[in-house]
Amino acid sequence: MSQKLSNSEKLYRQAQKVLSGGVSRNTVFRQPYPNYANTASGCYITDIEGTVRTDFANNMAALIHGHSFPPIVDAVISQLKKGTAYTLASEIELSFAKHLIKRVQSFERIRFVNSGTEAVMAMIKASRAYTGRAKIAKAEGSYHGTYDFAEVSQTANPSNWGNIDNPSSVPLAHGTPPCVSNDVVIYPYNDVERTLAILDKQAADIACVIIDPVPHRVGMVPGNQEFVEAVYNWTRENGALMVFDEVITFRVKYGGAQENYKVSPDLTSLGKIIGGGFPVGAVAGREEVMKVFDPHEKNLLLPHSGTFSANPITMTAGYTAMQYFDKKAVTKLNRITDGAIGQIREVIKLLDIPVSITGAGSMFRMHLRPTPPNTYREAYENQEVKKLINELLDYMYYKENILMINTFSCMLSTVMTQKEIDQLTEGLYRAFKALKPKIEKLNKI
Amino acid sequence: MSQKLSNSEKLYRQAQKVLSGGVSRNTVFRQPYPNYANTASGCYITDIEGTVRTDFANNMAALIHGHSFPPIVDAVISQLKKGTAYTLASEIELSFAKHLIKRVQSFERIRFVNSGTEAVMAMIKASRAYTGRAKIAKAEGSYHGTYDFAEVSQTANPSNWGNIDNPSSVPLAHGTPPCVSNDVVIYPYNDVERTLAILDKQAADIACVIIDPVPHRVGMVPGNQEFVEAVYNWTRENGALMVFDEVITFRVKYGGAQENYKVSPDLTSLGKIIGGGFPVGAVAGREEVMKVFDPHEKNLLLPHSGTFSANPITMTAGYTAMQYFDKKAVTKLNRITDGAIGQIREVIKLLDIPVSITGAGSMFRMHLRPTPPNTYREAYENQEVKKLINELLDYMYYKENILMINTFSCMLSTVMTQKEIDQLTEGLYRAFKALKPKIEKLNKI
Ligand SMILES: Cc1ncc(COP(=O)(O)O)c(C=O)c1O
Ligand SMILES: Cc1ncc(COP(=O)(O)O)c(C=O)c1O
Repeated sequence: MSQKLSNSEKLYRQAQKVLSGGVSRNTVFRQPYPNYANTASGCYITDIEGTVRTDFANNMAALIHGHSFPPIVDAVISQLKKGTAYTLASEIELSFAKHLIKRVQSFERIRFVNSGTEAVMAMIKASRAYTGRAKIAKAEGSYHGTYDFAEVSQTANPSNWGNIDNPSSVPLAHGTPPCVSNDVVIYPYNDVERTLAILDKQAADIACVIIDPVPHRVGMVPGNQEFVEAVYNWTRENGALMVFDEVITFRVKYGGAQENYKVSPDLTSLGKIIGGGFPVGAVAGREEVMKVFDPHEKNLLLPHSGTFSANPITMTAGYTAMQYFDKKAVTKLNRITDGAIGQIREVIKLLDIPVSITGAGSMFRMHLRPTPPNTYREAYENQEVKKLINELLDYMYYKENILMINTFSCMLSTVMTQKEIDQLTEGLYRAFKALKPKIEKLNKI
Repeated sequence: MSQKLSNSEKLYRQAQKVLSGGVSRNTVFRQPYPNYANTASGCYITDIEGTVRTDFANNMAALIHGHSFPPIVDAVISQLKKGTAYTLASEIELSFAKHLIKRVQSFERIRFVNSGTEAVMAMIKASRAYTGRAKIAKAEGSYHGTYDFAEVSQTANPSNWGNIDNPSSVPLAHGTPPCVSNDVVIYPYNDVERTLAILDKQAADIACVIIDPVPHRVGMVPGNQEFVEAVYNWTRENGALMVFDEVITFRVKYGGAQENYKVSPDLTSLGKIIGGGFPVGAVAGREEVMKVFDPHEKNLLLPHSGTFSANPITMTAGYTAMQYFDKKAVTKLNRITDGAIGQIREVIKLLDIPVSITGAGSMFRMHLRPTPPNTYREAYENQEVKKLINELLDYMYYKENILMINTFSCMLSTVMTQKEIDQLTEGLYRAFKALKPKIEKLNKI
């Protein structure tokens, strides 16, 4: 092998021979090759080249306290010595369940699983089991994990998304059974009139309407009050459930982004931060609906298990993480994030570039357009925009040593301080400045 | 609260108010209430009442070295301090991938996920993406996790399973979209003639035929040579894939149960023991097929990610577990298991009871019938049999302090010795003796 190869490049060449495409998750994929982590602590992550980067990705928004948070490390070590998984119940799952149920008004019962994907799948299956109906409705462009029903129209594009009054159900994976798309109704987010018209057409068959209250891939624009209430009322009138995917948005408020609305979802899927850095998912909601999982029922509507569900390590790490993410911590983190957004807006103004910011709580996303997108179709980035965003991300990653999420988003952690915010802002200043001509050109077309 | 309540009962009363049915996994559910684990080490698990039980369940076959295996504990602690999850690649996922690929001849590429459920789902989606076909075929009665397509006919019963020449596709959960069952073809395990006739009828639409080489719920009878080869040949002739679910059977031989056959699967799903006690899944197989996951491809057929997939803690624990489960360890564990089965057969003979044993490698299942079942329909247990098995399990659990799997099965771990085997055998002697009249009565009907 050539001496000029970096350590990461060497590993990646080997990885391509054993992992499909050299990675186990497409989110860590990077051209020409991804870097390999050596160690991470707080808001910093060091790769095997020795480069230290400030981490605004936090494992795709999963680490609310950054890396190796000492109270989590300590709690996990002590559980580790007592076992990582049993064919018995454990007290920690009960303590954590109590905590989450106290935390959110709409949670009456909860069930833990191993990922956001499993949580959304369980939530959809529970909705069908409760209503006896086959169809689900989801927003065009929204990401809900890898259950194929939940994937429909996740990356719909102008060539296939159809008329906005009746958006096409576009399967994500090649070979998706046609019946999958057929059982998924696509609605345009935050568009009350069109959404209700679309739902009305299939009213008798819809088990649930899934809403991500701040859908990352739709554009990270929060669902507006009127929209959420309209969907809620529609579901009440039509015997359907309104369910929230809060896998990513649970961080937004102490009780999740749902705190922002006057109406509550029947079920909620959780994941990411509630695992304290370990694989996790959960579905929580109304007792009457959650009963579909109850093995006491003579006619059990939804038999459900999972080898590692509610394992005591995830429960310990997650409970510790959530105890430290108390009301004060949420407020503080959101304030720091507001500060960061404020500083970035200053940069945008100073450089006079057509860039806008969306988001909520401790997360935000930047868009290469002068005004924030209102819909998925507005937020949709063509190849040219995507390429420029990758240039910006590479600038931040290689020149500024800042790791961001590949949608040009940041997910902050509680261990961040003004120092990291300044580093981010100054880095963005230089990146935007360097690429200003390209950003402007994009918007002139 | 009454003073007479045990600690576990007290907790369970609280649990029923927050967890649906009081549990997060139906496998830990037990009447009148489950016990709560306090600590576990090696082959012993101690509940919060202080009762120590010998663990033949090993978290539903997931702990090949029992609990708190010191090399795993040590390795995990040192990774823990370096972080539990990154938005970067890590060297440990590469090392582990190399190990597994070296271990199994049919593995050319691998991808990690977070559970057996996710592994089977990814394997099915990969099969569809590769072939462009919608349908899958699976064995009546086989368990493959909670993806609804994989659940069809998992608990088919005489009232709904239909004619054996054309078994019905019976959805598991209430509200399963009819199109799901419609896209799942059910075959009778180990029945070459019928299976081929059934597959032939849908030949053009079948993406893959899923085989669990020792299907636990079908009866834990290994797939016979002739059957596996016939399916293999059929898939070659009909442009379909043959895929193995080795989530549970990977323990059977050093290279998985597939080592027992002359033909190899195109894809294999893994889980359980390869996580070293942490949430895990994987799909591995032929490079050409695994390419559907490769993000380098211009036309990416199967976009796929997962927040916690290949996280360095699971990779560390899993790699350690598998290194210690080397050829010698596999052989030794299988020999101990054979010894256990031999002793239990003596007990059966001595007591002259109609009980038979099936299994492979380090797992076995007992059946309350004089000869081992050959098919799911023979292995199927009606309410009366189930009730008696629960009595036997309760006898073992409460009187003999032995934890088994609720199908009356044992999954051994490498830390077990003759002492635990003797305890199991003697316990079974007493349990069978106490319930002999009932077992005999059952078989006289
Ligand atoms: C809103 C939302 N739902 C579901 C998921 C899937 O979670 P996981 O990656 O843990 O399967 C994600 C992950 O990014 C998500 O952001
Ligand atoms: C053969 C088989 N496949 C898949 C699964 C699902 O694995 P998990 O429980 O990790 O989702 C299991 C679990 O028991 C299994 O035994």
